[in-house]
Amino acid sequence: MRFDDVRLTPNKGLSLHGKTKRMSDKRTELSKLGEFGLIERLSEGVQLQHKNSVKGIGDDAAVIDQGKDYGLLSTDMLVEGVHFDLSYAPLPHLGYKAIAVNASDIAAMNGLPKQVVIALGISNRFSLEAVEALYQGMKAAAKDFKIDLVGGDTTSSKSGLIISVSVYGQVEKERVAYRKGTKPHDILCVTGDLGAAFVGLQVLEREKQTFLANPNMQPKLDEYTYIVERQLKPTARLDIIHELKGLGVIPTAMIDVSDGLASECLHLSNHGHVGFAIYEEQLPIDKMTFDTAVEFQMDPVTAVMNGGEDYELLFTIDQKDHEKLEKHADIHFIGHAHEATKGNVLVTKKGNVVPITAQGWDHLNQEHKKD
Amino acid sequence: MRFDDVRLTPNKGLSLHGKTKRMSDKRTELSKLGEFGLIERLSEGVQLQHKNSVKGIGDDAAVIDQGKDYGLLSTDMLVEGVHFDLSYAPLPHLGYKAIAVNASDIAAMNGLPKQVVIALGISNRFSLEAVEALYQGMKAAAKDFKIDLVGGDTTSSKSGLIISVSVYGQVEKERVAYRKGTKPHDILCVTGDLGAAFVGLQVLEREKQTFLANPNMQPKLDEYTYIVERQLKPTARLDIIHELKGLGVIPTAMIDVSDGLASECLHLSNHGHVGFAIYEEQLPIDKMTFDTAVEFQMDPVTAVMNGGEDYELLFTIDQKDHEKLEKHADIHFIGHAHEATKGNVLVTKKGNVVPITAQGWDHLNQEHKKD
Repeated sequence: MRFDDVRLTPNKGLSLHGKTKRMSDKRTELSKLGEFGLIERLSEGVQLQHKNSVKGIGDDAAVIDQGKDYGLLSTDMLVEGVHFDLSYAPLPHLGYKAIAVNASDIAAMNGLPKQVVIALGISNRFSLEAVEALYQGMKAAAKDFKIDLVGGDTTSSKSGLIISVSVYGQVEKERVAYRKGTKPHDILCVTGDLGAAFVGLQVLEREKQTFLANPNMQPKLDEYTYIVERQLKPTARLDIIHELKGLGVIPTAMIDVSDGLASECLHLSNHGHVGFAIYEEQLPIDKMTFDTAVEFQMDPVTAVMNGGEDYELLFTIDQKDHEKLEKHADIHFIGHAHEATKGNVLVTKKGNVVPITAQGWDHLNQEHKKD
Repeated sequence: MRFDDVRLTPNKGLSLHGKTKRMSDKRTELSKLGEFGLIERLSEGVQLQHKNSVKGIGDDAAVIDQGKDYGLLSTDMLVEGVHFDLSYAPLPHLGYKAIAVNASDIAAMNGLPKQVVIALGISNRFSLEAVEALYQGMKAAAKDFKIDLVGGDTTSSKSGLIISVSVYGQVEKERVAYRKGTKPHDILCVTGDLGAAFVGLQVLEREKQTFLANPNMQPKLDEYTYIVERQLKPTARLDIIHELKGLGVIPTAMIDVSDGLASECLHLSNHGHVGFAIYEEQLPIDKMTFDTAVEFQMDPVTAVMNGGEDYELLFTIDQKDHEKLEKHADIHFIGHAHEATKGNVLVTKKGNVVPITAQGWDHLNQEHKKD
């Protein structure tokens, strides 16, 4: 009998509404469910009690009715050794990234981030100077993305660095974009270019191994600047949110690309009850991403479809809005929606039709995926 | 030269606005600053850009103007081995506590929590059943405190369990209570009783040691039910928030007691530019807390002043509101404010006047304090 079993036995003082039961001996490994499966399982039975809770679990941010506008609330946790490796991620960049990925969640709702709170777990191997370097990046990101740093919590951690950021944003009610909403014949759009952050990570990992083998070797990163920066210091595409508004376009659905195009496409598919056809020849791939992927003997399309952390925006628009965006230099039309029964497919340059499957970055099993 | 030093050297691609500088070799230990010192240091230079950011860093929650009401935003991180010990904290209780301590931050602003997002870092020693047990407690707390669980993030952790909760709440603009606002002659009030959670922790630690020495021994907790529950499953005093409103009382300042009465009193003192006189004979101490403290050869007043995690509310009221609260069974008048020059003092039963010093629970150095 373990000590904590005793405490789980119902008793007058400690029972939780008399419902706490002794934990069963059943053990289901989390890896069997994956991150999305776990979230689904934990969400079971969650009910919204407040009428201003417009949207709960299941989108990039929660939606809260604030009268005139919708408030948006999202949280992300970055854990040392899982999401970042301090041997090549400089602390200011890491701080910047922690804010950027949260701002990106708000952008994915077609909103703008306004306030942020930061919880930090810090082990005693970090000095004040190190924490200040981390904050330097956070403050720079807050300035770039026009977010007010309004609060936080700092605590000690037994092991590595833990950064948990929660962001509050706003969107006009009629402009909110959910993961659901795509209709057949809508056009699938993506901003920027894809795969760079993932290929950049491969470069950093290679240089780290080289460095570990011979600490006198200087990492060779100069020729990989763009893709390494995409990995270490991503941005949130708030510029696109402003431009969509200026152009009078409301996406029918939107998500940010944190887990790879394939995974995000399947989210829009599941939420919208539609399928997608994506055309390989339309995929935006930077030349450095392409060349470096080849150098690593990797198919660049794999980096685009299954790499993660690009933090670009993937969204669908009604066909009537096509001409409003067709001259935009940084928005690419990569496919279209069709009936769900047609499934999600990638049409290759050779005309082959390949099913799109989720091999996105599963944050619960990331190490496995990185192997 | 370390690998990451290279990356901190400014270069075209990776510099953060050209300002990233090579980290100095200076190393200041975080323990030298403590949690509050660190927060103060990190807050330097943080400016609020949005006019709806009414209150940033430095109170129990940030305040965001939402038009009709104020929105309140707060975050807290609980780290295994620092804030909880799973050998005696059952997962459902821990989940409950994680929500309660956040709800308490909103109560401390005289507001009510409405929505919550939860970020979890989970190591692979946790099974699905364990995470569900944790969520069982979170859902129970969400129900008790009428909070909607609207989102989250789950990720893997290299070591222990990390729970980061961010809560959004609301308060009518004219009812918001800050840490600042106390005037000389205001009455200092506290809810419930104090010191129980700290003494409960001593019992749990003792029983754990007994158990570790002889795993066949059953922990003796039955006679300590109340204080152990205060430690393992605290509540947020939202009942008081409703009652203050019903009685037509707006505290002139308020804070929740997470770090011990002394520490919180000094916060109200610093923010309000006043001093306080607290009377030992007025301190609310439960009999079990008192007797158990004595059993541990500890001064019960020390448990009250310097123990943590009671999550009661400490607030000041104008003298004109005294009679509205004097018949309240669970609100205790423990002292009064005076000019700042008179300092913060505890008046003992014997009439001695003792300066109140901060020996509260410093979350950055908690292990040290627990020794």
